[in-house]
Amino acid sequence: MEQDRVARRIIAAIKEQIHSGAYQPGDRLPSTRAFAAEWGASRTTVTAAYNQLNAEGYLIIRHGARAVVAAGLERATGEAPVSTAPPRNLSAFARRLLALPPPPEQQPGKVADFRYGDLSGADFPVPAWRRASNKAILRRGARLRYGDPQGSSALRVALQGYLWRARGINCVPDQIVIVNGSQQGLDLCARLLLDPGNPFVIENPGYPLARHAFAAAGGVAVPVAVDADGLRTDALPPARLACVTPSHQFPLGSVLSATRRRSLLAWATATGAYIVEDDYDGEYRHDIVPISPLQTLGAESVIYVGTFSKTLSPTLRLGYLVIPTGLCRAFSEAKRLTDRHAPMLEQDVLGDLLTSGAYERHVRSIRRKNAERRQVLLQALADRLGPRVTVAGADTGLHVVAWMHGIAAGRETAIIAAARAAGIGLYPVSPLYDPSGPRPETAGFIMGYAGLDAEAVRRGVAVLARILAEHR
Amino acid sequence: MEQDRVARRIIAAIKEQIHSGAYQPGDRLPSTRAFAAEWGASRTTVTAAYNQLNAEGYLIIRHGARAVVAAGLERATGEAPVSTAPPRNLSAFARRLLALPPPPEQQPGKVADFRYGDLSGADFPVPAWRRASNKAILRRGARLRYGDPQGSSALRVALQGYLWRARGINCVPDQIVIVNGSQQGLDLCARLLLDPGNPFVIENPGYPLARHAFAAAGGVAVPVAVDADGLRTDALPPARLACVTPSHQFPLGSVLSATRRRSLLAWATATGAYIVEDDYDGEYRHDIVPISPLQTLGAESVIYVGTFSKTLSPTLRLGYLVIPTGLCRAFSEAKRLTDRHAPMLEQDVLGDLLTSGAYERHVRSIRRKNAERRQVLLQALADRLGPRVTVAGADTGLHVVAWMHGIAAGRETAIIAAARAAGIGLYPVSPLYDPSGPRPETAGFIMGYAGLDAEAVRRGVAVLARILAEHR
Repeated sequence: MEQDRVARRIIAAIKEQIHSGAYQPGDRLPSTRAFAAEWGASRTTVTAAYNQLNAEGYLIIRHGARAVVAAGLERATGEAPVSTAPPRNLSAFARRLLALPPPPEQQPGKVADFRYGDLSGADFPVPAWRRASNKAILRRGARLRYGDPQGSSALRVALQGYLWRARGINCVPDQIVIVNGSQQGLDLCARLLLDPGNPFVIENPGYPLARHAFAAAGGVAVPVAVDADGLRTDALPPARLACVTPSHQFPLGSVLSATRRRSLLAWATATGAYIVEDDYDGEYRHDIVPISPLQTLGAESVIYVGTFSKTLSPTLRLGYLVIPTGLCRAFSEAKRLTDRHAPMLEQDVLGDLLTSGAYERHVRSIRRKNAERRQVLLQALADRLGPRVTVAGADTGLHVVAWMHGIAAGRETAIIAAARAAGIGLYPVSPLYDPSGPRPETAGFIMGYAGLDAEAVRRGVAVLARILAEHR
Repeated sequence: MEQDRVARRIIAAIKEQIHSGAYQPGDRLPSTRAFAAEWGASRTTVTAAYNQLNAEGYLIIRHGARAVVAAGLERATGEAPVSTAPPRNLSAFARRLLALPPPPEQQPGKVADFRYGDLSGADFPVPAWRRASNKAILRRGARLRYGDPQGSSALRVALQGYLWRARGINCVPDQIVIVNGSQQGLDLCARLLLDPGNPFVIENPGYPLARHAFAAAGGVAVPVAVDADGLRTDALPPARLACVTPSHQFPLGSVLSATRRRSLLAWATATGAYIVEDDYDGEYRHDIVPISPLQTLGAESVIYVGTFSKTLSPTLRLGYLVIPTGLCRAFSEAKRLTDRHAPMLEQDVLGDLLTSGAYERHVRSIRRKNAERRQVLLQALADRLGPRVTVAGADTGLHVVAWMHGIAAGRETAIIAAARAAGIGLYPVSPLYDPSGPRPETAGFIMGYAGLDAEAVRRGVAVLARILAEHR
């Protein structure tokens, strides 16, 4: 190893000499013996360095003769030094991407952070995951090779059963594509279904990263308002796709009514649009049985997007799509070209947890825990703010939206800054509205609770109440 | 749970009645008491089911009154039954994707499979991976939240050190993007740097999935021939990017000479093109020190693509890019929108292996093993085929290309079929050539050996020699 390091230093030194022009093409180098003596290195090391430079084309070595610097290696004139040069030609995709609003700053509040999407590390099913993981490592095949782009067959079979039991989805494993989290599912839909200039329907307010995925693909957003029955389907314009959250509208929390489900599906059939159904927290129906996905009513129109980010961890990057059979080849080839397939080890672990029942036990446990957190949050809001706050949406999911009566939306920024100074992470609803349309007049916050313990929730709301009183 | 199942059955039954028209909008349902008696279910269960149907908008429940079927739920006429309908509007990307040649069939030969890209499961560093993995699970944070799109900071710092030690690459962690294998790296380059119609330079022959990633983005391939000194840089046309394998040309195995490295970089500077340097097996220089990447000569022009697929496992889906500083924001935002970031757990494990030195120990061990496999293969080819075979390329990597003198390329298909029948997986070189240009006249095979033990290699070559004799 020491010898390697010396050889590398010799190689770098000779290259530097050639690049700087100290050695010119045709110049003869010292003999290996002379060079070794000069550097205090072994002759073997110098010979290895010369051979390397020969292999790279810097030197020409002929048997019995001294090494000679190869031709064509003169210092190029005007070569730019390494610097932070501005990017060269970027694609239209890249330009659209860079024009999107930047993601919100991430500086978690130390006392209580209500950021939506975080889970508590304490809820992760450590023993079950470790057991399954150690098993999967030992069970790896005799040959390690690229797998099926749609995902491991064992996981897809296990998921098929789970989706039937938990969500009433009736599909075959060939319709399932394992993706790196729902974001990749949305991105694949954008790439496969949208051309630049194509309109897409998106809920207003809605999930920014879905909107961004479709907009970066060149789609033109057609924001459609939501009310207490979910997306307003009475005036859907023609579009190539609609991205919706029917089980639990993000962020406002309404459930798409049965009538509107049927109108939406009829619109899709009539216009040839696809519906991307983002079922991001379908496992968290706290009081009643989870609502059947749209997919169960229109398997040929709906691309169902599921995730493990809300039940296991957002850091795992595991999600899945259930796709219409006619789209299987397109999604499969797109996944292959995008990144071959999802990581096998984690697919094996997840398949094991689904098959053994450990996943469903975990879901029941974390559902209970999050229902408790929700109760604590609602109680704290009622205790501290009473009628000055309205919590919107169905009793489900991992977040609430809290509207603060009598406080103008314009005060959101000041409230958030004051909260941050007090160690509270607080996130406004207004950026989730279409940037070109009207925004709510009342201050509203999206409050995630899945990453917090009861005490932090109570403390956070207490501080919030104090800050709100000051900004009233 | 039993209660849930019964409730679900009740819900499904009522929906079915509504969809079939047996229940019409405005119809009153039986009381929960009557329904419970009829179904032999508890009244609680029926109430839960009715409430669920109310939440979903199928029923309207008013206090003290019987549940009523909601309006707007008449069976839509002409609704298509679930079937394998052809896909609706697909994007231009999807159409280009579906027009690409299908991937080769994957039916591993049982006696010996020479498929390139496979590794031996026995070479995976099981104890080190398990240890690091168990540690990473326990060390997870108090909050599970989305991470940096470019990858965990710990891994990027560890990788920076590794890249300097192993490849002489001088970069900062901000220039590193952790990707889901090199394929995602190539795909990100395609999306960010190519618009439909833009020319891209690709080696001929070359790596099909690189070509496909750029072609699916709408790029127009400009195939450039390779010879014993790598890509021929004497006639490079203007293009938006060039994708090259300078350390070990894939598949022919030549090393890009120093002169050509400089011409290629000068071309990039002059035309504003980026160079995508796919260093897919840089760790496997068997005889001499690995050649310094192009990146070390032109950090502002080169996107360096590295992978762990050839040292750990292709099933992990972990790779990385080293990008010019001017492109950092574009790659970071593209990674976020594509799939947020690479899985955290595996990033933690890899970071740990790099920091502890376990990764480099593993690389030394697997490099030795693969050098031995290579020797066995070369010896077996020499013993069995002697002068009838020429092995091309530098003494490096995990594959060789074997040209079979006196056997026309047209016989490849028959030879491969005969090999398959004898349990040997054999793969032709010809599909790696540009489909529109001339192909080699002599039969040639790309032979990977990293997934085989010595005995399988010898047996495979013996069978191959017999088959070749029959096809001469």
